[in-house]
Order: sequence, then C-alpha cells, then structure tokens
Amino acid sequence: MPKISVKGQQMPESPIRKLVPFAEKAYKLNKRVYHLNIGQPDIKSPKVAMDAVEQHSLEILAYTRSEGSEGYRIKIAEYYTKKNINVAADDIIVTTGGSEALLFAMGSIADEGDEVIIPEPFYANYNGFATASGVNIVPVNSKIENNFALPPISEFEKLITPKTKAILICNPGNPTGYLYSKEEIQKLAAIVKKHDLFLVADEVYREFAYDGAQHYSILEEDSMAENGILVDSVSKRYSMCGARIGCLVSKNKQVIQTALKFAQARLSPPTFAQIASEAALQTPQSYFDEVITEYKERRDILVNELSKIPGVTMGIPKGAFYCIVQLPVKDSDAFAQWLLEDFDIDGETIMVAPAAGFYSTPGMGKNQIRIAYVLNKESLIKAMNILKVALETYKD
Amino acid sequence: MPKISVKGQQMPESPIRKLVPFAEKAYKLNKRVYHLNIGQPDIKSPKVAMDAVEQHSLEILAYTRSEGSEGYRIKIAEYYTKKNINVAADDIIVTTGGSEALLFAMGSIADEGDEVIIPEPFYANYNGFATASGVNIVPVNSKIENNFALPPISEFEKLITPKTKAILICNPGNPTGYLYSKEEIQKLAAIVKKHDLFLVADEVYREFAYDGAQHYSILEEDSMAENGILVDSVSKRYSMCGARIGCLVSKNKQVIQTALKFAQARLSPPTFAQIASEAALQTPQSYFDEVITEYKERRDILVNELSKIPGVTMGIPKGAFYCIVQLPVKDSDAFAQWLLEDFDIDGETIMVAPAAGFYSTPGMGKNQIRIAYVLNKESLIKAMNILKVALETYKD
Repeated sequence: MPKISVKGQQMPESPIRKLVPFAEKAYKLNKRVYHLNIGQPDIKSPKVAMDAVEQHSLEILAYTRSEGSEGYRIKIAEYYTKKNINVAADDIIVTTGGSEALLFAMGSIADEGDEVIIPEPFYANYNGFATASGVNIVPVNSKIENNFALPPISEFEKLITPKTKAILICNPGNPTGYLYSKEEIQKLAAIVKKHDLFLVADEVYREFAYDGAQHYSILEEDSMAENGILVDSVSKRYSMCGARIGCLVSKNKQVIQTALKFAQARLSPPTFAQIASEAALQTPQSYFDEVITEYKERRDILVNELSKIPGVTMGIPKGAFYCIVQLPVKDSDAFAQWLLEDFDIDGETIMVAPAAGFYSTPGMGKNQIRIAYVLNKESLIKAMNILKVALETYKD
Repeated sequence: MPKISVKGQQMPESPIRKLVPFAEKAYKLNKRVYHLNIGQPDIKSPKVAMDAVEQHSLEILAYTRSEGSEGYRIKIAEYYTKKNINVAADDIIVTTGGSEALLFAMGSIADEGDEVIIPEPFYANYNGFATASGVNIVPVNSKIENNFALPPISEFEKLITPKTKAILICNPGNPTGYLYSKEEIQKLAAIVKKHDLFLVADEVYREFAYDGAQHYSILEEDSMAENGILVDSVSKRYSMCGARIGCLVSKNKQVIQTALKFAQARLSPPTFAQIASEAALQTPQSYFDEVITEYKERRDILVNELSKIPGVTMGIPKGAFYCIVQLPVKDSDAFAQWLLEDFDIDGETIMVAPAAGFYSTPGMGKNQIRIAYVLNKESLIKAMNILKVALETYKD
C-alpha cells in the first residue's frame, strides 16, 4: 500500500473532533447538548448580504480575478480607511476565508523548518496551517492570571533565532478573548522591526471589543508598512462563516506579489460569497451595535455565572466571543468526554473544547477548557448551571 | 525589510499572467481581443443550479462540515456510481475547487523533496501546488506527433526513484485535449501498483469526450482502490468555475482521513456554492448533450481552420476544450505578445497561451501555444483567420 506523507501523519486533528463521536452518542440518547465548543455564531447574517445573493442575475458563474473582484477590494479598502487602517485596493488579496489568508501568509514568508512565534494558547488551526506549510510554531506562554495579556517582550526575544520569520497574534484572541492594547501592539511592532521579522495579525474579531475598548490594528502603526500582514475574514464580523471569504492585507508590495502567486494557482475565491461579502459592507451600524450588545451581555452572564462555581478561574474576555476557563479537574479532555457520555441534568448537557489543543507546549492547558459564548442568554445560564453541577459530581 | 520565503520566490506566475499588461494595452487601443487563452467557458451554468441559490432561505450563512455536507456527498456518490465509479459518500471530501483537492492530495502523499511524475505538457498550476507543497515535479515528455498519448511506460520507469510518490495525470488533458484509453489507464495502474505509488487523476473534464469516445476513470480499475486518488470539480462540467467546488475521491481510507485533516484546518468549503453544486446534479442530460455537441463542433472548426495554415501542426483533441498548436515561430511568448501589441486585422486580434509554461523541461514548447476553444463558432473562425494572417506577417 502506498504511504501517507509524514506531513499528512503529523497534521493535527481539531481538538473538538475527538469529541464528535461522543456528541453523536449523546444525540442518540436524545440528550440536549448546549454547544459551547464551536465558533459558529447563532447571530443572523446581515439581510443585505443574503438578499444580494438571492437577487443575483448571473447566467455564468465565472471565475473572478485571483485577487478578488476589483469592486469588492475597493470597498474593503474603504471599510479599513474608516477604521484608521489606510490601505488601498492593491494592498488587498481576497482569500477563501481567513484560513487561506493565513496559509498564503505562511507560504509567502516561511520555508520548511522556519519558525513563527505565537503566544499560546492560540487558535488550534494555526497548527494545521503550520504543518501544511512545514513551519514550526514556537509558543510563548501567556497566562490566565493576567487574562492572557501579551507576555513580556523579553520572553519573545529569548525565542528568536535565525529561523524566526514572524510573530503571529490573534487580536482579539481566539481562544482567550484578550484584546491587545495599543501599547502592546507597539511593543510587538518594535520587536519585529528590531529583528526584521513579519508581524502577522489575525484580526477577524476586530468588531468584537467590549467595555468601550478600541481595537488597535497592527496596520495603524506606520512602522508596520513593511512588516505587517493583516489577516481578516467576514466569517465572524457578519456571522457569515459559510461564505469562506477573507483577505490578506499588507502595504509590503513583495508580500502582496508573492501571496498573489499562491492565489493565482487556486484561480479565484468563490463568486457568490464575494457578492454576499461586498453587499455585507452596507450592513448598518445598528446591526453591529445590537450584536456587540448581545455578546457583551452574554460575556457578563458568563463571567457572573462562572464566578459562582468554586475552584473555577477564567481569563476575563475583552473581545471576541471565547474565554478560557480553568477547572478543578486534572484532565479536561476526559471531563469533556464524560460530560457527553455520562452526565446530564434532566437530559441536558454541554459540549466544551478541551484547551490542551490550543497550547503548543505539551502538558499546558490540561485543566482548562474554551467556552464560546455563541448561545443565547437563557441557554448560557442553563449551560453554566450544568457545568456547576457537573463539577460537583465529577471525580477524576 | 523582512524577507520573502524561498518558496514564495519560486512560486511560478501563471503563463498567461505575463501577457495581461499587453492585453490591457490592446483594450486601451480599443482592439477587440478574442480570448483563446483561458479555460473560462462561455456556456451558461445550469439554470437549476443558479435558481437554487436564488431561492436560498438561509438566515445564517453557517459552516458546513469540513468534508462537505452529507446530503451533497451522497448525491455525488450517486453521480459517480452512474459513471461506473463505485464510491460512497465517505470516500469523498468536498473541496474548494479541484485546486484544493490537488493541494490536499499532494500534502497527504508527499513530503518536502518528494517527487511526482507528470506527463508534460501539463496544467500549469500543478507547478504552483507542487511548489507550495515542497514537491518536485518530474516531467515525462508526451509528443504532439502522437496527439500527446501516454508516453511509453518504460519512460516512466526510468524516472522512478525512492522519492517518487505518485504519477499525476489530467484526463482528458488540459492543455492537450488528449483522452487516455482504457488500456493506457490500465498500464498506469499496473506501474503504480508495481512500484507502490499513488495514481492521482485530475478528471475535471470527464464529461467532455468527443467522437463517441468513453472516458475511463482510474477508479473504474478495482486495483486502484488503495492507489487511486481522483480529483474533480464542478467548474467545467457545469460551467461553474466561480463556485469553487470540487472534490477528492479515494477508496483508500488513510488518504481520506489524512485529507480530512487538511480540510478541517480550513473549516469548510463555501456554503452557497455547495447549494449550487448539489442542485447542479439535477442538470438534465440534454444540457450536456447540447454542450458536448457545441464543443465538438468548435473542435472540428478549429482542426479544420488550423489545417489551412501552412507550417502549423496540432494535437487533435479528443476531449476537454484545449489543444496544443505548434507554430512556425521560434518563441511563442514573443509571438503572443506581438499579437496583442503590434497586430490586428480591422481592430481585432487574439490572445493565446504560450505553451512553454505547460512544460517542466526547459526549452520545451517554445514554438507551441495552447488554444482554449471557449468561443462561439463564428468568433473561432475569425480568430483562426487572425492567426493565419498573423503568421504570414510575423517575423522572428
């Protein structure tokens, strides 16, 4: 039998995937499962976007340009300009989701065996893109007791080698919910400048900042014109995860020219989804105001409910819609499985993401879970009560 | 300034891309340009597919499963079964275009420095996927005088090394239009079996076989259950290039499990496009009959018109909608540029794809071009006349 590649063998499985068979077992037993495990929002996509697709008048579903249709890129640039991110259409490549933007970024700046430093815990799929690109992730640990704030720059400096090509951040953070301050971004800008590295920022949760905090993009820093690569997506902003539209943004012409070659090889991003995404840019501010209010309320409920559970600590989220919660258990993988397999309250249980998969350092996060607050408030309260009782019941 | 990766520098540009500025110059001079250079069909997409998207009732554009929605995969399996390709839904991963299926296939079976043997000339983007995956393409030359039939198996055997992981074919061929016979497929099956390699077949032009010839899939060979990986796409079949939906099909469970990990990292294929593609499976046979008749007539016109031009030879296409044409010029890159820049008949000219970009061996194909017959018959006749007069005029 012909052999699978080493890379293929090393490709990580999603940290949630292992639990899917147990979730399916729970369904078969007619358990109601509250899904706190995934970043699929329950928020409706903007009507203007969905209508635009309904009203399409295409007779031939043709390729668009590899870099995305010009009209759409011009409008994205206008969106950024309103956010103090001064970029032009030519600085943007439309990608098939933020995922592809990350792949293009890694491919453009790193070769086999090169290193990218990422504060951990981090979005688990970075592991997949790194493995697919032959890149090694070097984690720098951020701590729950600091709400996962930026680790000291000295910690980054210790890890920089001749193979280091970039620092990658997610801001606001999945899975931490941490929102980097302007000062933290400036510190990162200074260190990448000093060591001639790229700073790649996954800013797909830009819109989701709470308590009046302002998101500060790496591309608001003038010094990042050569070093900065912004990764973005419509998935979370407009609750349009299934569109698979994102973009890679950089003022560095070489980066754009190189990423464009990757984009050309795959021909073009999806056409219907670009129609939806272009229309989504007309989404009224009231949509975001309502969504942010909703998420903030959920966040507050979550923080409040979790504070009632003995032995539980959490990173208080300032953005996005995730938080990392530390539990009084030894192995959150086993606990998450037990929740699905062996526990319920009146036929109801919860599914959570064990946090070890968000760490690169072996052994880290074993007693932590990620909670995505993508459920309505009533469900969230019920889910937190299930967690409370489960922790009282569970023995490990 | 931080450095671009070596891989990024090596990523090839599309062979057509270099000509784009000259095409833009031609437009500015108000020249009419007949595009023989791209595989974007002028055929309408099936109404049933476009209507399904118009009638969507989604309120949340959510992720689908990473492997594609189950309903769609079941229907794809039914489509294959009708084509004597006995696969089940679980043997299929829905991808973002055939492009992504190729990337997943390469990543699943080959590591940095591994080799894949491909008959040349071949689809130029294989170079991009190979570079992105760190894989080396080893070309085996097929010849215009044989219509680009399968090279002797002895030629393949000479090239097999411990690093060889697969043979990759495109059937029917882009850019050759060659349709491999059942015997040729069986020869390939035997050699990959003998050397424990994968046989990857890009069969996106399956439907386009002329003169009553039958397409024979690698997965019709029972012996290819472990070795065969089929790459497919809705792009050409339904003239839905902008959908960006394809699939990877294999009876080898390890291949599917591995490709699924790549699929999970990028979350899911586009949702609207899956709706269109699932509906497209209801396209009536009459649609294909009309399309095939149309392409066959165009093929006949092309062959007939080219036969009138002195010094021109071609590979007679038996499938797809491309052919390679050998011209009495030294450098088809320069000729293609001259056609756009310096030539016209009553304000009309043609854009062709220089064929060197479809070869991996340096120097090959310098006097060849690829013609895509994606224009209506009247335009095709005009375009061939332009080529004839241009060749009479051109001096290199």
